[in-house]
Amino acid sequence: MSAVNSSLVHDLLIELDRAGAVPLHRQIETALRAGIRAGRLRQGASLPSSRRLATELGVSRGVVVEAYDQLIAEGYLASTPGSYTRVAAGPEEPSPAPAPPQPAAPRIDFGYGRTDPARFPRAAWLRSLRRVLTEAPHDRLNYLDGYGLPELRTALADYLNRARGTSAHPSRVLITSGFGQAAALITSVLAQRGARRIAVEDPSADDDIRPLARLHGLEVVGLPVTGEGIDPAALERSDADLVVLTPSHQWPLGGVLPARARTAVVRWARKRGAVILEDDYDVEYRYDRAPIGAIQGLAPDAVAYAGSVSKTLAPGLRLGWLVLPPHLADAVADAKLLADRGSPAIDQLAFADFLLRGEFDRHLRRMRPVYRHRRDVLLARLAEHLPGFEPAGIAAGLHVVAWLPDGLREQEVVAAAAEHGVHVAGVEPYRLARPGRQGLILGYSHLSENRIAEGVAALAAAVSTLGARPRPAA
Amino acid sequence: MSAVNSSLVHDLLIELDRAGAVPLHRQIETALRAGIRAGRLRQGASLPSSRRLATELGVSRGVVVEAYDQLIAEGYLASTPGSYTRVAAGPEEPSPAPAPPQPAAPRIDFGYGRTDPARFPRAAWLRSLRRVLTEAPHDRLNYLDGYGLPELRTALADYLNRARGTSAHPSRVLITSGFGQAAALITSVLAQRGARRIAVEDPSADDDIRPLARLHGLEVVGLPVTGEGIDPAALERSDADLVVLTPSHQWPLGGVLPARARTAVVRWARKRGAVILEDDYDVEYRYDRAPIGAIQGLAPDAVAYAGSVSKTLAPGLRLGWLVLPPHLADAVADAKLLADRGSPAIDQLAFADFLLRGEFDRHLRRMRPVYRHRRDVLLARLAEHLPGFEPAGIAAGLHVVAWLPDGLREQEVVAAAAEHGVHVAGVEPYRLARPGRQGLILGYSHLSENRIAEGVAALAAAVSTLGARPRPAA
Repeated sequence: MSAVNSSLVHDLLIELDRAGAVPLHRQIETALRAGIRAGRLRQGASLPSSRRLATELGVSRGVVVEAYDQLIAEGYLASTPGSYTRVAAGPEEPSPAPAPPQPAAPRIDFGYGRTDPARFPRAAWLRSLRRVLTEAPHDRLNYLDGYGLPELRTALADYLNRARGTSAHPSRVLITSGFGQAAALITSVLAQRGARRIAVEDPSADDDIRPLARLHGLEVVGLPVTGEGIDPAALERSDADLVVLTPSHQWPLGGVLPARARTAVVRWARKRGAVILEDDYDVEYRYDRAPIGAIQGLAPDAVAYAGSVSKTLAPGLRLGWLVLPPHLADAVADAKLLADRGSPAIDQLAFADFLLRGEFDRHLRRMRPVYRHRRDVLLARLAEHLPGFEPAGIAAGLHVVAWLPDGLREQEVVAAAAEHGVHVAGVEPYRLARPGRQGLILGYSHLSENRIAEGVAALAAAVSTLGARPRPAA
Repeated sequence: MSAVNSSLVHDLLIELDRAGAVPLHRQIETALRAGIRAGRLRQGASLPSSRRLATELGVSRGVVVEAYDQLIAEGYLASTPGSYTRVAAGPEEPSPAPAPPQPAAPRIDFGYGRTDPARFPRAAWLRSLRRVLTEAPHDRLNYLDGYGLPELRTALADYLNRARGTSAHPSRVLITSGFGQAAALITSVLAQRGARRIAVEDPSADDDIRPLARLHGLEVVGLPVTGEGIDPAALERSDADLVVLTPSHQWPLGGVLPARARTAVVRWARKRGAVILEDDYDVEYRYDRAPIGAIQGLAPDAVAYAGSVSKTLAPGLRLGWLVLPPHLADAVADAKLLADRGSPAIDQLAFADFLLRGEFDRHLRRMRPVYRHRRDVLLARLAEHLPGFEPAGIAAGLHVVAWLPDGLREQEVVAAAAEHGVHVAGVEPYRLARPGRQGLILGYSHLSENRIAEGVAALAAAVSTLGARPRPAA
């Protein structure tokens, strides 16, 4: 109960704007709160009486009382009957330091997994959004269930059955935010049901199943990709409860799982009561023949089929889907509801409209020759500048793998490329069993033909500094 | 290697449309796939040779070979050199039965937690979407980080600091899909860090923290809400690692946590190294005075502050936010990335635009008197028709609680109301320690004044059938 420090009133730094729209008591309140947070008003310090502060500021006492009361209610100030009002809160921590400067971006980025965002069909998407906002019934903006809106589930079932050879009934389609969420939901449900082990292709993506397995305490078993895909015998031995496959376009090596292996995988899953999570990630871009139908069509009872628009429209949309086997559907919908209460309604309705009006097909038809041409340029430039590199997985997708000639190590090439302003990834980081054959993953879909040519030339320049003697092309 | 059944060709049910856009080999392929799925072509059955089928259908042999090859690649057919092509897959399970008919919707639904979806500002939202799709740089449509887009994080920090008294720096703001996801991310991170126990208000919502605690094997401790909020002494005894609070408007009872309890909760959290999850769910609607500032402003180091647009714009948008203490921020961002790879970019940018242009403030200013008037009508009708009911939590929000007079049981009232076409919830289902005081939760925000009046009259009629003698109002 110390006497009021006479300099305190000055320290309050209250400047009133009498002509402004903000009421005077709010201005006082804001200034005091700021003073407390900044530490100018230290915890325990007494404030002037409301009468005295009102006189100092030339306002009515009620204005100060209102400001004090608000801050008392919020816990910044405390008052005891008969004593001064005191500061009850300490200063806040200093604002976080600004982020450190990012390293300079590479001039040319062969990073994988991009669509070309400049080709996102903005006008068509906006038309779908406008129709939704003009026409959707009000109740569509309310809380959602875990499956998603029926408009989109029906449109997707039709699309997938037609374009991907799935056997999807709308009641088994569930809207996700993409493959990452699909994997998160499936692993969570299976872990709760007692699953112990997940089998994945080796090599395969390292940013979804592997961290999810760690999160749920599941073991990960790698199935070597030999030739076009995994060996079902390795799966038999794996003792897995879930196998994650990219059967239509193995990531990153680009093979198509042969028919015999498909049926063997289905047989294994049925016999074991295991689940196949089919990641159908970029198969819309198959350049030299029709895409291979999804395994889900062969065995809707054993396959959870996952897809998204991340490789066709834009990853930023966060729109994907699962087609689920009966024994998983409700549990995954419950998990989705608990995780995020469903995907955004307007986005779902817009995508349904986009599908139904044929805009999706139109967009794919437009993009296929664009990406194919970029692939052709990449392959031509590789053949010209780096004839010792052996391209693989070129028939489809948005990237190719280039196997390195003997004597070159991925890490050295990646590092030398970075020094030449080129970002490119090696295959090795995606392997579970190392070392393996040395290769690069070259994403081309987001790069113009000129940039691709420039990038390959720079990559060749980088490789030439390594002093290895690339084997001449056969 | 049985001989071809001569009736099989007929069973194939292939009808070719020679004038259509679909290539003949695709038509054959589709018909065969459908036959296998339907079980008309049973597993193991031999197909006619490509030559014979081509003759039957009047097409070139290459067309049939292409169809067979596709289905072989997909695993529907199998061929062994020198033998016939056979069906390699079984029929699919029958389509799921249509959903059973839903029970008839109540005529009047006092269910809580709705905005009025008819009031969603569709035109303004569409303007924001149009600006985003016209102006956003292409890279905004690419993959996201776990925090969200800087445009929205900055706009939200400004809004929350101004309107909710938070102390939010954009670098600590993380975009979620709403409170449900915020709770899922926080509990997941804390469970991984060894948390054992979550304290919640009793009563409180039963659809987020409680199932999440079960998922992560955490214990839930109820803190009785007495008077305006929890008793900090109960929190001290709880041994909790996380406390979930609705301090500005307790759900469902409507109290404001008093200043002394706020500072005590903060002291407890700091001493224990525990986290306060502040659910600031509908405080924008406070009718009789300025909203109470968030606890987060008092202790940004100990509070994870969560909000969303579900009660202000529409739940279907699935847009929310967290303001995180430093020791949680990166871990929650990692968890968000693993869960769904970030919230949709276009929605984030649209909401940022909506905030920056003052549309959000405008919408709240427009809705406040609408909801206040509905509340006034509800209170007036309750006083008239059900004077023995004691309203509580009326100063703010989108619902009121009506305590029942002695002699009435919630369950009986809820059941009788349902028979009179009125849906209303009791308080009891949300209690951890039962029984407690008997009361109803009456959501009014989505109902017109006429519907509210009609609903209260029907509720009164329902109550009158129970034969209890409601205590007259004082």
